[in-house]
Amino acid sequence: MARRRVGLWLVGAFGGVGTTITLGLATMARGLVDQTGLVTDLPDFRELSLPEPGDFVVGGHEIRRTSFQESAEEFRRNTGVFDASWLSACRDDLAAASSRVRPGPKLGLGPAIARLADWETESEPATARQAIDRIKADIAAFVKAEKIDHLIVLNVASTEAPFGIGEPHQTMAALNGSLSRTDALILPASSHYALAALEEGHTYLNFTPSLGASFPAAWELAETTGSLFGGKDGKTGETLMKTVLAPMFAARNFKVMSWVGHNIFGNRDGVVLDDPNNKSSKVETKDKVITEILGYKPASVVSIEYVPDMGDWKTAWDHIHFKGFLGTKMVLQFIWQGCDSLLAAPLGVDLARLADLEKQRGGKGLMRHLSCFFKGPEGDDENDFFKQYARLEEYVASLRAKTK
Amino acid sequence: MARRRVGLWLVGAFGGVGTTITLGLATMARGLVDQTGLVTDLPDFRELSLPEPGDFVVGGHEIRRTSFQESAEEFRRNTGVFDASWLSACRDDLAAASSRVRPGPKLGLGPAIARLADWETESEPATARQAIDRIKADIAAFVKAEKIDHLIVLNVASTEAPFGIGEPHQTMAALNGSLSRTDALILPASSHYALAALEEGHTYLNFTPSLGASFPAAWELAETTGSLFGGKDGKTGETLMKTVLAPMFAARNFKVMSWVGHNIFGNRDGVVLDDPNNKSSKVETKDKVITEILGYKPASVVSIEYVPDMGDWKTAWDHIHFKGFLGTKMVLQFIWQGCDSLLAAPLGVDLARLADLEKQRGGKGLMRHLSCFFKGPEGDDENDFFKQYARLEEYVASLRAKTK
Amino acid sequence: MARRRVGLWLVGAFGGVGTTITLGLATMARGLVDQTGLVTDLPDFRELSLPEPGDFVVGGHEIRRTSFQESAEEFRRNTGVFDASWLSACRDDLAAASSRVRPGPKLGLGPAIARLADWETESEPATARQAIDRIKADIAAFVKAEKIDHLIVLNVASTEAPFGIGEPHQTMAALNGSLSRTDALILPASSHYALAALEEGHTYLNFTPSLGASFPAAWELAETTGSLFGGKDGKTGETLMKTVLAPMFAARNFKVMSWVGHNIFGNRDGVVLDDPNNKSSKVETKDKVITEILGYKPASVVSIEYVPDMGDWKTAWDHIHFKGFLGTKMVLQFIWQGCDSLLAAPLGVDLARLADLEKQRGGKGLMRHLSCFFKGPEGDDENDFFKQYARLEEYVASLRAKTK
Amino acid sequence: MARRRVGLWLVGAFGGVGTTITLGLATMARGLVDQTGLVTDLPDFRELSLPEPGDFVVGGHEIRRTSFQESAEEFRRNTGVFDASWLSACRDDLAAASSRVRPGPKLGLGPAIARLADWETESEPATARQAIDRIKADIAAFVKAEKIDHLIVLNVASTEAPFGIGEPHQTMAALNGSLSRTDALILPASSHYALAALEEGHTYLNFTPSLGASFPAAWELAETTGSLFGGKDGKTGETLMKTVLAPMFAARNFKVMSWVGHNIFGNRDGVVLDDPNNKSSKVETKDKVITEILGYKPASVVSIEYVPDMGDWKTAWDHIHFKGFLGTKMVLQFIWQGCDSLLAAPLGVDLARLADLEKQRGGKGLMRHLSCFFKGPEGDDENDFFKQYARLEEYVASLRAKTK
Ligand SMILES: NC(=O)c1ccc[n+]([C@@H]2O[C@H](COP(=O)([O-])OP(=O)(O)OC[C@H]3O[C@@H](n4cnc5c(N)ncnc54)[C@H](O)[C@@H]3O)[C@@H](O)[C@H]2O)c1
Ligand SMILES: NC(=O)c1ccc[n+]([C@@H]2O[C@H](COP(=O)([O-])OP(=O)(O)OC[C@H]3O[C@@H](n4cnc5c(N)ncnc54)[C@H](O)[C@@H]3O)[C@@H](O)[C@H]2O)c1
Ligand SMILES: NC(=O)c1ccc[n+]([C@@H]2O[C@H](COP(=O)([O-])OP(=O)(O)OC[C@H]3O[C@@H](n4cnc5c(N)ncnc54)[C@H](O)[C@@H]3O)[C@@H](O)[C@H]2O)c1
Ligand SMILES: NC(=O)c1ccc[n+]([C@@H]2O[C@H](COP(=O)([O-])OP(=O)(O)OC[C@H]3O[C@@H](n4cnc5c(N)ncnc54)[C@H](O)[C@@H]3O)[C@@H](O)[C@H]2O)c1
Ligand code: NA
Ligand code: NA
Repeated sequence: MARRRVGLWLVGAFGGVGTTITLGLATMARGLVDQTGLVTDLPDFRELSLPEPGDFVVGGHEIRRTSFQESAEEFRRNTGVFDASWLSACRDDLAAASSRVRPGPKLGLGPAIARLADWETESEPATARQAIDRIKADIAAFVKAEKIDHLIVLNVASTEAPFGIGEPHQTMAALNGSLSRTDALILPASSHYALAALEEGHTYLNFTPSLGASFPAAWELAETTGSLFGGKDGKTGETLMKTVLAPMFAARNFKVMSWVGHNIFGNRDGVVLDDPNNKSSKVETKDKVITEILGYKPASVVSIEYVPDMGDWKTAWDHIHFKGFLGTKMVLQFIWQGCDSLLAAPLGVDLARLADLEKQRGGKGLMRHLSCFFKGPEGDDENDFFKQYARLEEYVASLRAKTK
Repeated sequence: MARRRVGLWLVGAFGGVGTTITLGLATMARGLVDQTGLVTDLPDFRELSLPEPGDFVVGGHEIRRTSFQESAEEFRRNTGVFDASWLSACRDDLAAASSRVRPGPKLGLGPAIARLADWETESEPATARQAIDRIKADIAAFVKAEKIDHLIVLNVASTEAPFGIGEPHQTMAALNGSLSRTDALILPASSHYALAALEEGHTYLNFTPSLGASFPAAWELAETTGSLFGGKDGKTGETLMKTVLAPMFAARNFKVMSWVGHNIFGNRDGVVLDDPNNKSSKVETKDKVITEILGYKPASVVSIEYVPDMGDWKTAWDHIHFKGFLGTKMVLQFIWQGCDSLLAAPLGVDLARLADLEKQRGGKGLMRHLSCFFKGPEGDDENDFFKQYARLEEYVASLRAKTK
Repeated sequence: MARRRVGLWLVGAFGGVGTTITLGLATMARGLVDQTGLVTDLPDFRELSLPEPGDFVVGGHEIRRTSFQESAEEFRRNTGVFDASWLSACRDDLAAASSRVRPGPKLGLGPAIARLADWETESEPATARQAIDRIKADIAAFVKAEKIDHLIVLNVASTEAPFGIGEPHQTMAALNGSLSRTDALILPASSHYALAALEEGHTYLNFTPSLGASFPAAWELAETTGSLFGGKDGKTGETLMKTVLAPMFAARNFKVMSWVGHNIFGNRDGVVLDDPNNKSSKVETKDKVITEILGYKPASVVSIEYVPDMGDWKTAWDHIHFKGFLGTKMVLQFIWQGCDSLLAAPLGVDLARLADLEKQRGGKGLMRHLSCFFKGPEGDDENDFFKQYARLEEYVASLRAKTK
Repeated sequence: MARRRVGLWLVGAFGGVGTTITLGLATMARGLVDQTGLVTDLPDFRELSLPEPGDFVVGGHEIRRTSFQESAEEFRRNTGVFDASWLSACRDDLAAASSRVRPGPKLGLGPAIARLADWETESEPATARQAIDRIKADIAAFVKAEKIDHLIVLNVASTEAPFGIGEPHQTMAALNGSLSRTDALILPASSHYALAALEEGHTYLNFTPSLGASFPAAWELAETTGSLFGGKDGKTGETLMKTVLAPMFAARNFKVMSWVGHNIFGNRDGVVLDDPNNKSSKVETKDKVITEILGYKPASVVSIEYVPDMGDWKTAWDHIHFKGFLGTKMVLQFIWQGCDSLLAAPLGVDLARLADLEKQRGGKGLMRHLSCFFKGPEGDDENDFFKQYARLEEYVASLRAKTK
């Protein structure tokens, strides 16, 4: 029987995460590297009918005119990762994937992201509806050309500034009435992609803190079309640590007085996050997990600073000041030195694999069992990493039980 | 109805942990401090019929002639904790408790601990049987004088060197045949206390890595007499962190290449652990948890160094070198600055409260639901802190369910 | 021969630094503590005719109505330093010193500091001239009552926002013409104290980044009246480290790509520095030392965050990313956990002792040999701590040579 | 005029430091990299007649049969440094240098180093005299073939175990009488190289803690033959930091209570240092600098642990516990993450350049102005890095003055 063909449509394809996913799938498919870092490579997941790296076909949208080959080479130089030999071995794979990336509409980027955009197109959409339709056309062409069985849109584009939602975002009826307005921006770019996916019954995953599908009308749409979706904002480094450590403080009845976290890094994501508006989206998800786990709000500081020479090496220093027995003040500090895109990319692949598994199973709507992958898990108040992960394990165990 | 009287018999009473437990119970009973740091003060535990701080009567054994007042004052000076006003407010409580502490037999201390012993007694036991009987007599007098409903022996004495067990330790029959030998040391001091407790149906809890009740004959004895027991080695600082973080590395399929942990501290426990034999007991429990959680053994270094000026402030630096996606090497480091006895004492109180709850319930034998409190949980291979803690929560939930 | 009486007039007397200086002098004079932390206690300084702790008479100005007894007790509680026994032993000294503290004029405080002021006075000055004259009157009364031989004004008041200087601050002639204006604020509060001191030939030392005597007209005034002066901003923690480490990077020809420094603390100084205007004064001196030592400007981040539970414990994390041979990127990180006022106070005492030595020697004007004590040494481009310190050692050596 | 030809004879040529020196000279000579990390590239040194990278001809001895090409490639793979393109660009230089490396005699290696040796030779010397003569012959052939103007032997071989010196090492007369003994090991291998150099009037530099020329008879020999020499043990990472920070603690009259330093790394040097005997040589130089700078001995711990996955990345955590004013206890911690050979190699080049400068000047004997490069500067009690460096600057300034 022919293998299933899963389309992985990357919004922000040539970015750090997009490039690492694409190169990672190619190197894994060619057997150049093992699957360390993939959650779905753990023993518990092995018997499931997950798509293999070689089953994915990568395409996507970008606003910068470049290619996977160039972005991978640039990344290698600045950050000191990726073996040079992989780039030559996978040159053809990268070139093929690059040819499947299309220019994204520039409507709704916001100023910080718009500064990056250099991929000129003949015309740009003037309304949300036009943007959505152009995206749908690009995806449909890909699905057809590549004979895709299941299409997954994964948002790994730059973080947008927060976007306030209102009346038009509550129901599809209201929203549809607004999508063709030209007098106001109805949605940020990320939501154009989300609607494009959900209108067609494709799967939508939001790895960023941008709005994407996180508003009532989009949920309603997903229900109507039977689409799968999940988000938001991948939980990779400092925030992962927070959701691992805060439960310990809670379980030992320590009183956290303050939690200070400073992050520095120097990749393109940092350029965009250097804009205070865009940064505020990120700080919010990074900060609130602690309060939700502890049940009270300690004093807190969260900073994210762009320091160019750091490249993709995100370094975080966290200082946790807590009170123990008899009011004794103690300190835990940690320093996290991780390579951001290399932390994010495997989760992107995991999400795509697990979404496809759920698709095969006939699932629909919000995938709550994926909360452990997200800083701001949608439709879920649980931020304790181990409670989230236990839920994923239960899901997997129940699937395994069924297949036996 | 009169309140239940729970006897808390501290082996190593005047040590850092013993003193902090005793002062802590007194200050809590007098309402001078809140219960921060007590697990059993968490909401989930509040409806249970746990003994209150004022329900405990403290007694114990020591080998150093001093008092709770002196040891608390010394601790305050060296470590900069305990408010001076608490010591005066609780002066009478401490004096009363001090009068209930008896000189412990010196048989089986080993050289490093024997150097500390300065509490002279008229005669010293020559056999394990004599030591056990003297301990039993002291405890019996206490139980009678204080009208104790439930007696709990809690070992918070100095860490002994590892003690190799053999044939005589397999069954009570074999052991009983050996306890009166004078030609060889049958058991370390900690086990004299354990047997004294278990022979009388008292509860025995081992907060140290010493042998205590951790051999087959002792388990058999506990079964025969219906005694409760649990251990061993309280999980307070660096090891707690290890059992919190290692599951994260496992759940994300990161490959831990090396885990290096260096500990420095300067309390009396450190004096004893400065002896390589005694230290080896500790290093073992601190090291193996990682291997058991990860399922493989990374390169590892564990050091514990006695640095007198640190007092009770245990500082640990851990460096975890791990491989993520595409073999990318990353680093997590943490620095733990905790006050050791203040971390240990509340767990001692928690263990005593939970043991009493189990006694009220009619429980017997090994208390496996207490694993989350121990570095080397007895009869249990689970070292993942959150899995252990989930088990305690289930236990508590089932009790709550019953009482409704 | 009667001992010399040195008046130490503290502006911001009841603050953390002022209180610690006052308590420190009292405890040293009473022989309760040794002189650890005093530079002038080092062997090289011992033969000089420095005033002893007991030779100082403390007075000062404040805007908050409290006392040394209260502020010391508050400090002890929040920060866990100062032995309770010292406070009782020195109760009379503290009370006497408190009675010599006068309410400071509120003109020129700026909004962040004004919020602290609660010491009501019958009338407040409306012009700089009136403020200066009131300060002079208070000091004159003290000098007379206490038979002071040498009066030193030491500014340890809250950090003011940067104050732009212009034409009126260039010469005394111009300035005198402006001091009685009521239509504009001519000077910040700190400069009122500076002028009050310098007009009378007293010594003026500025331990803060506030303007104080740092403008041409004040220098001219000091020359005219033969006053000694020095500043500014005591070099105690993170910045001391920067001026110790940056020379190492320079001497090894490492290229510092970025230097990131995050500071957290929770004392009253932090409350004021939490105001962005006031903070900017501090960040500036903390940041520029690196550029001046290296000769180029690396990427840099400096943050100072107010985290109340930290009390006086200033914790700084610095991350230095540098390039070595063959462009290899390496990292040095340090974590400084210091108690701010306890670091600052001995330097205040050192400055006062050394200023008195210079006075005895007949010196006048700017004391450049004191640069090693300051983040922003006046009239000096040298920020390398060891070069600065070598200069102090030379000065001391030349004095010793003369006395032989 | 033809350029001067300086022979750089590396003992331990194919090791991490030797390889990095050789590749570094080649890449600099070809203009592929700048001179960041070379002290002698600083402005103060630029006008001096220092040999340029292209003026050096590399040769040496090794006990492992490999080549610069292989060792550089291995290093690149394990440690993630060296651009792959440099290795191809310098392939011929490396090959030529490899052909000038000769098998070193195996006499006096000690067991830990002997385990590395795999370069078989037809015969091995049985006495020190024979070893020395073989070394001299190899060097003489190189000097002749390459028309070397000045030959410098630089010891970058593995660290030997401490070697106790006695009567025979006090004078050349006594030593010469012993060099042909076969019944006992008179000298460790490092000293064979030292004597071979000094007997011929070559320059000898010891970058390791091994004995080398550090005994009276060798100094006498250097005097007789007019040879230059210097050592020992390059000061690169943690110890450099110690000699930079300890002076700060001294200058501020802080009392260092304890200084704990833990080092982890995983290169071949680490394999040898994993042997307790060899390690003890290293720990000694790392530890005593603090005592010598402070003038008293704080409690201290120094560990060096071999952790293979770290490669050449030496990570050190230092915890410094000190007492400030009024006995207040504070903490400074630093974490150094440096690539060891990349830190060492430029110092090797600096030493060779400066030794050649001194040779041109007609200097003889011990070069005390090089102390700043060494952990255990010979004939010098000064360990304060900045005092040492000031001395080098004075030396350089005096040379500049002369040439004007
Ligand atoms: N560890 C992690 O790296 C991590 C973790 C959680 C979330 N994220 C999020 O993932 C996203 C990607 O991170 P990155 O490091 O790859 O950033 P990046 O800047 O390298 O890549 C983002 C790419 O998106 C492109 N882009 C922006 N807007 C677009 C649009 N509307 N349509 C098409 N392309 C668009 C940009 O041109 C850029 O190439 C960010 O939002 C980041 O916050 C990353
Ligand atoms: N965080 C922690 O403090 C922690 C965590 C886990 C385990 N522990 C263990 O708890 C124990 C107590 O720690 P501590 O800091 O209080 O040490 P400590 O040295 O302050 O106290 C131990 C006391 O036991 C006494 N003692 C020793 N042998 C005895 C004997 N046979 N009979 C009676 N008394 C005896 C000693 O005189 C001493 O007073 C140690 O074994 C330690 O390893 C402590
Ligand atoms: N390590 C250090 O603590 C350190 C180092 C360098 C500089 N400094 C500077 O020293 C100063 C004092 O620091 P602190 O920690 O004691 O702060 P603090 O807030 O505890 O004390 C400052 C005191 O000054 C008083 N004050 C403010 N304006 C005044 C005025 N115009 N007249 C009279 N009193 C006034 C305030 O009421 C307060 O009591 C700050 O400017 C700080 O930046 C401190
Ligand atoms: N930062 C640093 O790297 C640093 C700093 C100070 C000192 N050092 C010292 O420099 C030396 C070299 O360090 P490395 O990292 O290059 O070690 P390495 O193990 O990579 O290299 C040492 C080489 O010496 C060779 N060797 C050993 N004994 C020999 C002998 N008698 N004759 C000829 N060759 C011999 C070995 O085979 C090996 O190739 C070590 O002694 C180290 O302690 C290094
Ligand atoms: Na990123
Ligand atoms: Na090395």
